[in-house]
Amino acid sequence: MTSKPIIRHAIASDVPLILEFITELAVYENEPDAVLATEELLLDTLGFNENSKCYAKTLLIFDGEKPAGMALYFNNYSTWRARPGIYLEDLFVRPEFRGRGFGTALLAALAQELIDTKGGRLEWSVLKWNTPSIKFYESIGAENMGKEWQVMRLADDTLTAMATRGPEVERR
Amino acid sequence: MTSKPIIRHAIASDVPLILEFITELAVYENEPDAVLATEELLLDTLGFNENSKCYAKTLLIFDGEKPAGMALYFNNYSTWRARPGIYLEDLFVRPEFRGRGFGTALLAALAQELIDTKGGRLEWSVLKWNTPSIKFYESIGAENMGKEWQVMRLADDTLTAMATRGPEVERR
Repeated sequence: MTSKPIIRHAIASDVPLILEFITELAVYENEPDAVLATEELLLDTLGFNENSKCYAKTLLIFDGEKPAGMALYFNNYSTWRARPGIYLEDLFVRPEFRGRGFGTALLAALAQELIDTKGGRLEWSVLKWNTPSIKFYESIGAENMGKEWQVMRLADDTLTAMATRGPEVERR
Repeated sequence: MTSKPIIRHAIASDVPLILEFITELAVYENEPDAVLATEELLLDTLGFNENSKCYAKTLLIFDGEKPAGMALYFNNYSTWRARPGIYLEDLFVRPEFRGRGFGTALLAALAQELIDTKGGRLEWSVLKWNTPSIKFYESIGAENMGKEWQVMRLADDTLTAMATRGPEVERR
């Protein structure tokens, strides 16, 4: 008999595991050096330090005692609906646990959480070369927003430059 | 002498104006019927009702007393950085106020707010046919993430279907 996987929200003592998953996902995405996250930064930004703000939540999935994967997510917002949504920043299942529906189980848990809060949309990004994932997402009926929309980003130098621009304004 | 524009965060009594801007932007995007938002829903989801959660914030820009535009935004999160970012959901300047740097002033205010909170990325989406906006965004150094990434979405029927899927799991 195969035991059911277990899904639960992460707590402070899971932060080292979360950092492992973040790093393993970055390696899969061919960006092993992109991870600037540390346990200290995660504790602070995931709301696990006293008075620290929670910017994102994490669902963990376990096969018995063995950590198998995670879904790290935050609320986004639709002005057309005037409702919150969920944006799934990282979905990761360790290779040895793939093909058993763990990714689907995490997505299903997020969909249910969203419906419980009367939210409207569950969204995430996928690398365009990641054909296996795109096929899976299409099989569950996900719409490719990339046909009509493109995401733009300011960061680092361009972000700093923008902060100093614009006409003189009064801030109130 | 031209007076400086004024930028401030929205308060509850600005909700009718926010709904006007949301509707005017939807018309510009050729989606006049897409707006399901109401004043009641906005009051609740923008945190203006007692005990209601604030899912998004709004910066308003005024030319003297005249409302000229808004930036409606929320915090997103980067796992690679373990830092919050800002996602700009709606940037809108009324046609009669365009060309005076009001859009840039709103973006500059968000960039400064992000830097103040040690956040890393300012992101937003643009319709691929909206060439004037894309040219402007490129002129300020914004990176087009749509070359590598595509956003996927579950909503309505596909969201409901997903909530019932996945293997049997224990929730803890």
